[in-house]
Amino acid sequence: MTQIAIVYHSGFGHTDVIANDVARGVAEAGAHATLLRIEAGQTDFDAFFAAIAESDAIVFGSPTYMGTVSAPMKAFMDASAAVYFTKQWKDKLGAAFTVSGSPSGDKLNTLTTLAIFAAQHGMLWIGTGQNPGNNDDTSAATDVENRLGSFIGAMAQAANDSAEVTPKAGDRATGVSLGRRVAEAAARWKAGAREAVAAA
Amino acid sequence: MTQIAIVYHSGFGHTDVIANDVARGVAEAGAHATLLRIEAGQTDFDAFFAAIAESDAIVFGSPTYMGTVSAPMKAFMDASAAVYFTKQWKDKLGAAFTVSGSPSGDKLNTLTTLAIFAAQHGMLWIGTGQNPGNNDDTSAATDVENRLGSFIGAMAQAANDSAEVTPKAGDRATGVSLGRRVAEAAARWKAGAREAVAAA
Amino acid sequence: MTQIAIVYHSGFGHTDVIANDVARGVAEAGAHATLLRIEAGQTDFDAFFAAIAESDAIVFGSPTYMGTVSAPMKAFMDASAAVYFTKQWKDKLGAAFTVSGSPSGDKLNTLTTLAIFAAQHGMLWIGTGQNPGNNDDTSAATDVENRLGSFIGAMAQAANDSAEVTPKAGDRATGVSLGRRVAEAAARWKAGAREAVAAA
Amino acid sequence: MTQIAIVYHSGFGHTDVIANDVARGVAEAGAHATLLRIEAGQTDFDAFFAAIAESDAIVFGSPTYMGTVSAPMKAFMDASAAVYFTKQWKDKLGAAFTVSGSPSGDKLNTLTTLAIFAAQHGMLWIGTGQNPGNNDDTSAATDVENRLGSFIGAMAQAANDSAEVTPKAGDRATGVSLGRRVAEAAARWKAGAREAVAAA
Repeated sequence: MTQIAIVYHSGFGHTDVIANDVARGVAEAGAHATLLRIEAGQTDFDAFFAAIAESDAIVFGSPTYMGTVSAPMKAFMDASAAVYFTKQWKDKLGAAFTVSGSPSGDKLNTLTTLAIFAAQHGMLWIGTGQNPGNNDDTSAATDVENRLGSFIGAMAQAANDSAEVTPKAGDRATGVSLGRRVAEAAARWKAGAREAVAAA
Repeated sequence: MTQIAIVYHSGFGHTDVIANDVARGVAEAGAHATLLRIEAGQTDFDAFFAAIAESDAIVFGSPTYMGTVSAPMKAFMDASAAVYFTKQWKDKLGAAFTVSGSPSGDKLNTLTTLAIFAAQHGMLWIGTGQNPGNNDDTSAATDVENRLGSFIGAMAQAANDSAEVTPKAGDRATGVSLGRRVAEAAARWKAGAREAVAAA
Repeated sequence: MTQIAIVYHSGFGHTDVIANDVARGVAEAGAHATLLRIEAGQTDFDAFFAAIAESDAIVFGSPTYMGTVSAPMKAFMDASAAVYFTKQWKDKLGAAFTVSGSPSGDKLNTLTTLAIFAAQHGMLWIGTGQNPGNNDDTSAATDVENRLGSFIGAMAQAANDSAEVTPKAGDRATGVSLGRRVAEAAARWKAGAREAVAAA
Repeated sequence: MTQIAIVYHSGFGHTDVIANDVARGVAEAGAHATLLRIEAGQTDFDAFFAAIAESDAIVFGSPTYMGTVSAPMKAFMDASAAVYFTKQWKDKLGAAFTVSGSPSGDKLNTLTTLAIFAAQHGMLWIGTGQNPGNNDDTSAATDVENRLGSFIGAMAQAANDSAEVTPKAGDRATGVSLGRRVAEAAARWKAGAREAVAAA
């Protein structure tokens, strides 16, 4: 079965919601998701690295704090240096999602930073694959997918409220779709490795 | 009088609206704005460079097309290579605004690209200086400044509609504030040059 | 046979050299490369789009001019908007290379911009997959691959000299390796589509 | 006297070297530098924030780890959220430097991330203001300033060796120049605030 690791940090529970939505999408595509939640102050990631070693794809999730990934997410990234030097994640598939309080709010920098990070590891990258869902200039329709218009990863907006009520339906559905897309691509990529490349 | 050049491209008139809003803010701050509109296919920018030479600050404006500045904007940027080699814009102040159809929509990459471009020219950079204006997760309140949550430059969202009705009031006011902020900073920066640095 | 389109602009021939190196790598991997060279001022890209439609992967190449892709490259990117709206390149593989005069020189912004652009098209992205080749602090060894230390795409440095003598061997070999890597991944990705995803 | 805070993290001493070079440049320009070194695991930055409150400019320094600022640097950045909400650093001047093992090595993403961060705080940004110092394609001349070709901040390359021998002279001189440039600009900016803006 295709294995998808979802490595994420969540400060106030909003990124946790999207992480679980991504996992739901993975399951819908018939793959298995492992949720790896980074805690603030965590420095030992050995169990995470063991789980990732068995995975075909890694989805990275982080709130956007002060313009990029959160410090706990960065602690995980820095801890992966040994894995990087030996290229253990080479040719795994990567993807990302992020959450912040504004519609735009520098979220793109979080996503490109995670794509650059994955490229250092020799991973392939997959984005939302969706056109923007929002066709007016109010962004008021919170139930459409890819409402914020993001491509290199999924974006969600969380109000200053409980994770039970925010992010809204459209952003959550975007997370589900990302999970499904990553799982399907990982399955295809894995299947491709079983065929002789010469046959292409 | 403090002189502010606003160099921009507008494909469908929406960026033109914001450019004029920035100019309004410049005027409100008691400075003079020169609007320099790049046309599609334009290759001769000598008149632009002459106007910019007299300016204390340059505000760059571009729609976000396919993830970054538009091709006509890029034509202007490439044409500035000779100016770059001789550092003619060194120590001028720079700022930027961008417009696209989605709330986020990779607009950040347009703004950071323009900041990188200005840094090549040896310019200083100034952003919106505003906290995000949007406190819920719907972005429905289109009348607040910095509604989209942008800092390194101003963002506006334009619906698939005429420039007479979109971008909405909040995004337009953000443009006015950027113009005012650039003009005030340029005046201060210019005044500082008149004092002996040793006096500091 | 796996088909790889290489779409690029070259101002002074240096990017042309790397484009041909990438094509060589593609051929070494048993795939077919189509070189599509963008000319300055070009506005009609229909023949390019027709060739790309038949391709499994697209490698984008551009000099880094004033901090990002060149204006002719951007003209091609903007012309792809119609292709974007209908998601014609969705699930193709993408990669990039860039050339400029300095070791670093904002080349990264060109590569991330092309990755963002490809993500808008719904493409997957593949980088160099190589650790940095350079182990000292002089960069004097110009014959090692990935000498400049780049991951999300390939970087080459061109001196202010003829394309016959610069970029040097290491940067050219990096281009060959990128071509080989893209071709092998595209073959694998294509083979994966032939298998039932359910089998994964 | 103009006050410059240099906030930085150094993992193996190389960034520490450049931080001290920046401080030397600040002193050469007649201003006062305060070095604030972030330790791994540090969570209390109150003394840092107190020192920064008295400063006219902040220079941020970080190694580039896994594609962006190090985790300890990010911990400092996240801790500044309260300062951000109240815009305490608004209109201070900002700048940055970074160190990594490769000539390019994703260092640009560290610098743009710090510029985005400073923009969130409402700060102005100043870069190296230098043309690239390197005119060949070997980068072998390690004694020239801005050897790596960077603009939005200063880049240094550190070999896998002791901080006593690397980074080399050119990269260290780039740090000195950045310090001098920031101090001179901060003095001018401060002097400008003393004059009536109306006088402009």
